[in-house]
Amino acid sequence: MGSWIPIKADSDFSLQNLPYGVFSTAADTDRRIGVAVGDHVLDLKAFARNGAFASLEKDFDVTLLEDPTLNRYATLGRGVHRKVRAFLQEILAENTTLGNVLRDQSTLRSAAVIPIQLVNMHLPVSVGNYTDFFTTPHHAQNCTDIVRPGSKVPASFYNMPLGYSGRASSVIPSGTPVRRPRGQFVTSEQQPKFGPCEKLDFEVEFAAVIGKGNDLGQPIDIKDAEEHIFGCVLLNDWSARDIQMAESTPLGPFNGKNFSTSISPWIVTLDALEPFRTKSLRSNPLLPYLQDREDSVHDIAIDVHLQVDSEKYHLTRCNTKNTIFSFAQMLAHHTAGGCPMQPGDLIGTGTLSGGTQSELGCFLEASWNGTRQCTANTKGGAESKSINRVWLQDGDIVQYTAKAQGKDGLGRVGFGECSGQILPSPYI
Amino acid sequence: MGSWIPIKADSDFSLQNLPYGVFSTAADTDRRIGVAVGDHVLDLKAFARNGAFASLEKDFDVTLLEDPTLNRYATLGRGVHRKVRAFLQEILAENTTLGNVLRDQSTLRSAAVIPIQLVNMHLPVSVGNYTDFFTTPHHAQNCTDIVRPGSKVPASFYNMPLGYSGRASSVIPSGTPVRRPRGQFVTSEQQPKFGPCEKLDFEVEFAAVIGKGNDLGQPIDIKDAEEHIFGCVLLNDWSARDIQMAESTPLGPFNGKNFSTSISPWIVTLDALEPFRTKSLRSNPLLPYLQDREDSVHDIAIDVHLQVDSEKYHLTRCNTKNTIFSFAQMLAHHTAGGCPMQPGDLIGTGTLSGGTQSELGCFLEASWNGTRQCTANTKGGAESKSINRVWLQDGDIVQYTAKAQGKDGLGRVGFGECSGQILPSPYI
Repeated sequence: MGSWIPIKADSDFSLQNLPYGVFSTAADTDRRIGVAVGDHVLDLKAFARNGAFASLEKDFDVTLLEDPTLNRYATLGRGVHRKVRAFLQEILAENTTLGNVLRDQSTLRSAAVIPIQLVNMHLPVSVGNYTDFFTTPHHAQNCTDIVRPGSKVPASFYNMPLGYSGRASSVIPSGTPVRRPRGQFVTSEQQPKFGPCEKLDFEVEFAAVIGKGNDLGQPIDIKDAEEHIFGCVLLNDWSARDIQMAESTPLGPFNGKNFSTSISPWIVTLDALEPFRTKSLRSNPLLPYLQDREDSVHDIAIDVHLQVDSEKYHLTRCNTKNTIFSFAQMLAHHTAGGCPMQPGDLIGTGTLSGGTQSELGCFLEASWNGTRQCTANTKGGAESKSINRVWLQDGDIVQYTAKAQGKDGLGRVGFGECSGQILPSPYI
Repeated sequence: MGSWIPIKADSDFSLQNLPYGVFSTAADTDRRIGVAVGDHVLDLKAFARNGAFASLEKDFDVTLLEDPTLNRYATLGRGVHRKVRAFLQEILAENTTLGNVLRDQSTLRSAAVIPIQLVNMHLPVSVGNYTDFFTTPHHAQNCTDIVRPGSKVPASFYNMPLGYSGRASSVIPSGTPVRRPRGQFVTSEQQPKFGPCEKLDFEVEFAAVIGKGNDLGQPIDIKDAEEHIFGCVLLNDWSARDIQMAESTPLGPFNGKNFSTSISPWIVTLDALEPFRTKSLRSNPLLPYLQDREDSVHDIAIDVHLQVDSEKYHLTRCNTKNTIFSFAQMLAHHTAGGCPMQPGDLIGTGTLSGGTQSELGCFLEASWNGTRQCTANTKGGAESKSINRVWLQDGDIVQYTAKAQGKDGLGRVGFGECSGQILPSPYI
């Protein structure tokens, strides 16, 4: 699918993608909804205000596209989102027969098609609730071996998607710096201590953003679950391992996680990801309420780079398929007792580690809780530089990118960046 | 403090109290802010619209009192809330010199002073984030003995307020029925099973509602923490013990708690509770960031009644002082790493059990995880009826009430009811 807007072959934002985000510009600081296309952002507010969605006015209230967040648009459901997607693909196509909607309208085009380097991205949704799951078997096995050596991964891990409520108020968009948290932890002499975190970590996750919610007491059946997902983002579940270890028995993570959670700014719809479906790592049978289609997850590689000074080191490569539960299974389980989902809620997979050293999704695993150095390299073969890390250091920038490369002429589907720089603690 | 609005001696809503809520009436279904006084509710929206707050217009934007929730008013801080409180006490006092504001304005008075039996109460705030703590030593000891017999309460319990993120979307106001949840648990044969909860429980808690928030990365110092609290409510942390037990290792409670959390509808300010300050149960020293004033908690008895058919049985009496951490300590800890609080956020104490059988705050403790019957009695001495329970049954109504009885002529400060009826599962 070619477009009259130039789209490079390696762009994250092909016509197959068309992800939604919320942006502002220096010239207009109001937050508004946009769709990324190649190196441009289509301003849907300007587009809607100029009547360009007139042909869809019978399908939904197009003024929702003038909102400063995607929450209300997300609730419309996938039927509407598919119509908008098809319409945008049509008007953006190289040989469109609808050139009069945008391509040939020079005033609208110059107002609504904005070079991506001019936009500032914001949180795409107001996040009311954030749930973090723990569904990835390599991560579960490694964490068990590190934290409770000699014990087994609990049987419950294989029978249901284990999860916990995360902190919604500290979800931040990519690019927001992350302040090294301080907290209480236990020294090697087993004394409680209060100070800056000494074991700061990242976690590579994939997350679903809820579109349509459900009412209190009304579970979402697994067959309907994907209809409740607006799209997906990359998620960095920043973790303070020393704080987390001191507080997690018996109630789970709290201050070790609630200081910041970063997400990539573009919400990629499940329709854009449809060609990349694959099987999960599941092998054991499940109770009926969790039985999902076979190709229930996606094959999307997530690369993690560490940027230190001006060098960019490749640290690890995870994959969204490294899980035993799909988002549909997570949603069916989460709502089984009647818990209400709301538009904009986030559902994270847990750390997407693979089975080898170069696929581990956090330093806790890669440095085996700080007991071994992890080496990351720049590109460049013989002239490649390398760096060693055990935990994150002040100034480090952690950057996630993800690509799903379409076959048969489909363009690439990416997510932009999910990145954040570690700021030093002011409390030394 | 007498009022020209009749206030019975045993009313929860003396002039010392003046709690805030959000209500509607059959005649006007718009949600609006009110203050309870005896058996009446003062409609602050009507009051504000009629210019009755004119003398406070220099202090704050009085139109915030026309909102359908208390979130924006709560952010104004305790300085403003104290002025409003003093003003309301003055105009409501028996011998007020400001009778022309309300008492002598018959039209305004009949519009704005509404009999309490005519109002429907709603959630007083939009709850963005809900944190449940675990700060009560009798409960911690009992849970440890029941769930991990032979092990000790973790040392961390005494050194910091342990907590976890709860589910904000399922916080409901008193009176909303609670549907028995279904979920996955483990049978006595150690097989996973999916079905209606068989161990449904209540938990008696006290909760603070956040007023002024803090920015990401900016901790709240313990000296300032009470300035961030708008007021307090009673909270029932309904729990499905079988679901909770199956899922809680290693991430803590999830579906066992997220199906419903009830709160009482009236937010009682810390100023109203000031006369009831007392010491907590703390005995061990703390790190400096958690050092609070001596009388850091409140002495408020919470009675739990079980209503079955039309009989009301007294089940237990807890007290808000049965804790080792104050709300100020919880807030200082919660934000120490930079986690942002937002107006309307809830912070619960954990189950407020005392040290005897008649002071236990949940069936998990009172029936020792279902191994002994709990007996509750109606009033009436020799003619008293009794009932036995191990867990909650369908149709049961659990009702919390709380009283702090003022000395030296101060009226009683209560919270109204926090109640909910168990509805049967539709999935048998």
